[in-house]
Amino acid sequence: MSDVKKVVLAYSGGLDTSVILKWLQDTYQCEVVTFTADLGQGEELEPARQKALKFGIKPENIFIDDLREEFVRDFVFPMFRANTIYEGEYLLGTSIARPLIAKRLIEIARQTGADAIAHGATGKGNDQVRFELGAYALMPNIKIIAPWREWDLLSREKLLKYAEDAGIEIEMKHKQGGAPYSMDANLLHISYEGRHLEDPNAEPEASMWRWTVSPEDAPDQAEYLDIEFEKGDIVALNGKRMTPAAVLAELNRLGSKHGIGRLDLVENRYVGMKSRGCYETPGGTIMLKAHRAIESLTLDREVAHLKDDLMPRYASMIYNGYWWAPERVALQQLIDHTQEHVNGTVRLKLYKGNVIVVGRDSKTDSLFDNTIATFEDDAGAYDQKDAGGFIKLNALRLRIAANARQKK
Amino acid sequence: MSDVKKVVLAYSGGLDTSVILKWLQDTYQCEVVTFTADLGQGEELEPARQKALKFGIKPENIFIDDLREEFVRDFVFPMFRANTIYEGEYLLGTSIARPLIAKRLIEIARQTGADAIAHGATGKGNDQVRFELGAYALMPNIKIIAPWREWDLLSREKLLKYAEDAGIEIEMKHKQGGAPYSMDANLLHISYEGRHLEDPNAEPEASMWRWTVSPEDAPDQAEYLDIEFEKGDIVALNGKRMTPAAVLAELNRLGSKHGIGRLDLVENRYVGMKSRGCYETPGGTIMLKAHRAIESLTLDREVAHLKDDLMPRYASMIYNGYWWAPERVALQQLIDHTQEHVNGTVRLKLYKGNVIVVGRDSKTDSLFDNTIATFEDDAGAYDQKDAGGFIKLNALRLRIAANARQKK
Amino acid sequence: MSDVKKVVLAYSGGLDTSVILKWLQDTYQCEVVTFTADLGQGEELEPARQKALKFGIKPENIFIDDLREEFVRDFVFPMFRANTIYEGEYLLGTSIARPLIAKRLIEIARQTGADAIAHGATGKGNDQVRFELGAYALMPNIKIIAPWREWDLLSREKLLKYAEDAGIEIEMKHKQGGAPYSMDANLLHISYEGRHLEDPNAEPEASMWRWTVSPEDAPDQAEYLDIEFEKGDIVALNGKRMTPAAVLAELNRLGSKHGIGRLDLVENRYVGMKSRGCYETPGGTIMLKAHRAIESLTLDREVAHLKDDLMPRYASMIYNGYWWAPERVALQQLIDHTQEHVNGTVRLKLYKGNVIVVGRDSKTDSLFDNTIATFEDDAGAYDQKDAGGFIKLNALRLRIAANARQKK
Amino acid sequence: MSDVKKVVLAYSGGLDTSVILKWLQDTYQCEVVTFTADLGQGEELEPARQKALKFGIKPENIFIDDLREEFVRDFVFPMFRANTIYEGEYLLGTSIARPLIAKRLIEIARQTGADAIAHGATGKGNDQVRFELGAYALMPNIKIIAPWREWDLLSREKLLKYAEDAGIEIEMKHKQGGAPYSMDANLLHISYEGRHLEDPNAEPEASMWRWTVSPEDAPDQAEYLDIEFEKGDIVALNGKRMTPAAVLAELNRLGSKHGIGRLDLVENRYVGMKSRGCYETPGGTIMLKAHRAIESLTLDREVAHLKDDLMPRYASMIYNGYWWAPERVALQQLIDHTQEHVNGTVRLKLYKGNVIVVGRDSKTDSLFDNTIATFEDDAGAYDQKDAGGFIKLNALRLRIAANARQKK
Repeated sequence: MSDVKKVVLAYSGGLDTSVILKWLQDTYQCEVVTFTADLGQGEELEPARQKALKFGIKPENIFIDDLREEFVRDFVFPMFRANTIYEGEYLLGTSIARPLIAKRLIEIARQTGADAIAHGATGKGNDQVRFELGAYALMPNIKIIAPWREWDLLSREKLLKYAEDAGIEIEMKHKQGGAPYSMDANLLHISYEGRHLEDPNAEPEASMWRWTVSPEDAPDQAEYLDIEFEKGDIVALNGKRMTPAAVLAELNRLGSKHGIGRLDLVENRYVGMKSRGCYETPGGTIMLKAHRAIESLTLDREVAHLKDDLMPRYASMIYNGYWWAPERVALQQLIDHTQEHVNGTVRLKLYKGNVIVVGRDSKTDSLFDNTIATFEDDAGAYDQKDAGGFIKLNALRLRIAANARQKK
Repeated sequence: MSDVKKVVLAYSGGLDTSVILKWLQDTYQCEVVTFTADLGQGEELEPARQKALKFGIKPENIFIDDLREEFVRDFVFPMFRANTIYEGEYLLGTSIARPLIAKRLIEIARQTGADAIAHGATGKGNDQVRFELGAYALMPNIKIIAPWREWDLLSREKLLKYAEDAGIEIEMKHKQGGAPYSMDANLLHISYEGRHLEDPNAEPEASMWRWTVSPEDAPDQAEYLDIEFEKGDIVALNGKRMTPAAVLAELNRLGSKHGIGRLDLVENRYVGMKSRGCYETPGGTIMLKAHRAIESLTLDREVAHLKDDLMPRYASMIYNGYWWAPERVALQQLIDHTQEHVNGTVRLKLYKGNVIVVGRDSKTDSLFDNTIATFEDDAGAYDQKDAGGFIKLNALRLRIAANARQKK
Repeated sequence: MSDVKKVVLAYSGGLDTSVILKWLQDTYQCEVVTFTADLGQGEELEPARQKALKFGIKPENIFIDDLREEFVRDFVFPMFRANTIYEGEYLLGTSIARPLIAKRLIEIARQTGADAIAHGATGKGNDQVRFELGAYALMPNIKIIAPWREWDLLSREKLLKYAEDAGIEIEMKHKQGGAPYSMDANLLHISYEGRHLEDPNAEPEASMWRWTVSPEDAPDQAEYLDIEFEKGDIVALNGKRMTPAAVLAELNRLGSKHGIGRLDLVENRYVGMKSRGCYETPGGTIMLKAHRAIESLTLDREVAHLKDDLMPRYASMIYNGYWWAPERVALQQLIDHTQEHVNGTVRLKLYKGNVIVVGRDSKTDSLFDNTIATFEDDAGAYDQKDAGGFIKLNALRLRIAANARQKK
Repeated sequence: MSDVKKVVLAYSGGLDTSVILKWLQDTYQCEVVTFTADLGQGEELEPARQKALKFGIKPENIFIDDLREEFVRDFVFPMFRANTIYEGEYLLGTSIARPLIAKRLIEIARQTGADAIAHGATGKGNDQVRFELGAYALMPNIKIIAPWREWDLLSREKLLKYAEDAGIEIEMKHKQGGAPYSMDANLLHISYEGRHLEDPNAEPEASMWRWTVSPEDAPDQAEYLDIEFEKGDIVALNGKRMTPAAVLAELNRLGSKHGIGRLDLVENRYVGMKSRGCYETPGGTIMLKAHRAIESLTLDREVAHLKDDLMPRYASMIYNGYWWAPERVALQQLIDHTQEHVNGTVRLKLYKGNVIVVGRDSKTDSLFDNTIATFEDDAGAYDQKDAGGFIKLNALRLRIAANARQKK
């Protein structure tokens, strides 16, 4: 067990990280600094402060930060500029929050002179990788404590026993036999894993979903929405300018209302196993659709295709925890550069789980030129005869090959 | 004007290709062979025979083929094995039919000793490219006549005048001022272009859509559907084995009923312009979702990612008309090989425009191993301590770099 | 024939472009502006001025520019930052000069109020595409005259006859039956096409090569060379700082002396045919080797691999003439960003066609950490046990699959 | 320490693996099976048998296999079909041998009923990963013993002491202070790491190189060589048909004689560090050059570019040890398919480190069509006017964008 003097713990105030807090004190005999972030998960954070104080954490060692604007502005929005989807489905709601937490853990470690950080992610998941790769990239000699990989509290019973012995308050949901879903929430999404989701052939319980109504329960009346983009980011909804976090909160409200953004999938974890997860990403689902629509009007074809070709790789970088790695930063240069002209407005219709694009417009950057594309007379804007030469030369290699094969 | 003796015309029996038929006879003074294909577009083909006879086409020069099974089996299914989408949205319903028509045009040209083929695609679109690249690849010295690039009937009025003079029957829809939508249909989709779609900011008229009901008009009751895959292709629906064309027809029926598969987008044509199109792909939308779901269970992660990385390129090959090019064929080898283990069943819920995966199962090829992924005690199947080394070595280059930058 | 008032001609002063100059005057009855560039091709440019004057070109319409520094700084160096090679062999010496010529043609067109440009590239090659795509991208409504695609002087005899009739001086080499090699030269390379190179199985004549000695005739004594890089560009040779053009000129001198940089290949042209070309790129061959060596020390692995994966695509963009297209510009953002830390010195040995790396060093940016890589005792810098977990988790998906297949 | 009954050891007969043999017997108290492979490394293998017997290994537990033909046919040749190079330089000589050794270890484990394998690769290198990923993929529940990650013999002194105590014969080179180079050899290459190569700025000692003469010492007379390919593999040299291993042996002889194939580089290991290695790959260097040359004549452009785009990824798969992974197998399908038409002969000139292509010919599969590419009159085979339309449409998106930007 390495020698640790002061450790910064990513602390939610919940059962697991409370047990970890106590276990760190017991095991390492070290000073603990708690860090609790408001990423828009929709929970009160002050109780975390009270709990920390109860464990004897010094007030100056308790950090509670509202990171919502930074989260959306510097992490969510840059990721959406790439139309990022992992494995064709997943909008990376958990993945994109981890690098910000890693960054703050390290900032607080520097500020408090801590020599270690700790987190509550298990040894089977992706989050441990995301936290730790980020931390190592930002502070290469930091010590990292991942209790789930060290301790012997691997069964639910042992954990509850430890909590009880330590006088940690245990909520009813933990007591009533059967673990709850493993959940994670922030402004971009809420996720569910575990319990009977462990059977990939079992439909999720209706009661599991927390944010969105089901499409069935969504309003019978569709709702229209205007989304305004500047350089690829949303700056206004229905004509009202908003901060990034306010944009995402409002899109979540609208999406949740209309049953938008539920997802049920089997994904491939970086640690090598498949796992089943369910996600609600109401605002993100709307953003993705809208962003593709405004790009369809303003982005050059080959730039768009270059982005599409690179997107799965970029998505894997984020999923696997390489946000702070130089290859992600390099790729971001390309992505951000392409957004210079992604300006304009998209009109959407929201209805019972559907996000329907009904219009897109860009006063300044549209590359849609109807004088050329029209089926009507184009007054010579486009010479159809050019297509003959275009096809002939594109066909040349095919014809030469076919001729060669025929001779043979 | 090159010397043509006999030309095979892709003939729908509609106004445009009827004018072309007459124009070919007038202009080239050559024998015309008509080819009319049933690709599942849902139109009677016998009227095309009657019209051809009226133009003096010899009975043995009239080819009317039911290509539905070949279309789905050899074109649609192989394409869906790759989860193919063009520019993040378009399911390539038109693109994938063109290579089959090109193939038949050439087969008939060989059979009838024709030295040319002709088609009714305009000089502004992708279809001319798809027809002609295919034809050149299969018969490199074929002559190709694309009347829209040659004649002077570029305005609607001139075309109608020519038809009238030639005694070609003109349906009411053509007469009532304003061209109809430019449409294309086959078993995979129906598409709309032109008219007021030429303004990308205008919502489509509700009356435009022909196949699907709107989500609003779809049943209030969801419907469940079991889809069975063998080697990546659908072989049964709700336990009933069907031929490829029957599968797609049934999925179209179900999708249309539930308001599934409408799409409204701006796309980048191969000839260099953006254009706005609306599509209905009810069955294809269901297939794509189901195929991704069965792959999520049965495909290795890195194989899936390799496919995802190559998919946009494969989609562009098809969109741009390179189905018969050697690079498409080479890529198909890889894709088809990966489908060996894509066997199993996906359970879907269809509701008002939504296709919701609610279960996936593979008795023979599941790579989902719950003894490893479980949040419960895994009895040693996975050693969480391994993750420490995994992260440490993945972080090594990041740490070395951070240390080097710090020294500097 | 479109109406042209003033045309800027890319004018070398040689036979072909002199005939073009006269033909433009004869055919278009328009004012001609000549543009002659010094790209380091090693020819006197003043004779071009005299010839232009003889054709009646106004002095203010004669542009002779020394573009050598701009060429190397803004075109050659950026390209080499990507280790760019087309089809595994070709260093793109001709391709990279064309966008600069296109840029100057358009600048001069704007300055002189010309409405057209003209060039002497044939309709079979890549250069027409490179000139014209560049020109269109920079000035979309410019008229472009490509005489080789318009006139009927396609045979050598007709061309010479036209020249004779026009009183254009014909050098002996053109008269003595048999066309000379088609050549192109600039500071980066000299190329040869045509004549008996048209048989890809024929070895080039020893007398063809103009810049380099053969390896056989190179000195028996090897020569060492130190190359210093800053942000991926060479700034000094053997400790002496130089401008970009001076760097390349000196590398050409050294490479030519040591028989370095000859290349004989069959390449795939953008217009669809294969062609055989021979190239001498002495300085470029040294640059590429040196750049890879300094990157091997200073670039992160995944950044290097990202660059390697994208390089062939970037090379095709340049080869095909898309330097001024937005996708090339976007990719350049990524490439340039990666060069921030590519600083240091490479030591090479030049000997009879060989460029041998014998050392690489970076005081500021080396990522080579011998305390870790050493075969000697590393004092705990690296824990070999970490490798066990690393391998176990990387193997996990393979093991799960193997187990699943076994059961089956 | 896990319970092991019988272990198959990859045994070279050298000092390190002899110590490992003894250590396995001491530590695991288990039966040891030795496997010694002839991969063309050029060493006598019978001494390994004698040494094994001395350790008390049962004769039936001693496996000595000549794997040279299998190695070249099933591993080296398939890899060269892709023109595989890692990081722009390295021909993967060590990497490609490891999967074959892994395969045989597992075959022997099955045959002898062993429950474990062991190898002598250290915990810092790539080879441990290659051995173990291969083994796990082929036999998912095999136990793997990597003594370098387990024991405490990490310093040279401890190792020699252990050997001495165990009565293992120690060659002079090990005794004379200073470790020897870490070397690996097989029919494809010999590699050197360690010692003063650990300084990337130090030139290798002339005495280090074992296979090739230096270019300076190579013959003053060039030598020509004809190489015949069938489906991408070499089947004859100078008109003489040979087996795969005989081909590579003969190319090694010729390359070594002419100073071909030395390489000195810094590479990025999979475990996250940079390391410096020197390699001699005489035959492989010739093969790569020849293979590219025959492909340049016989491969379609887009197929060649697809291969080039995927090559770095394929190279990483092999370098990182994923030969037996499904993504490598899938990619191989594509690669092998493309080689169908790669038939013909390449003529090379070998001279003092240079491999110079002087001709390439394919009677059956050449796609080089001189009637089209010629600078002479082509009798109408290619209509230069087609290029106008080709360029116009390729430029269209650039022009539309430039016009849009201008308006703005």
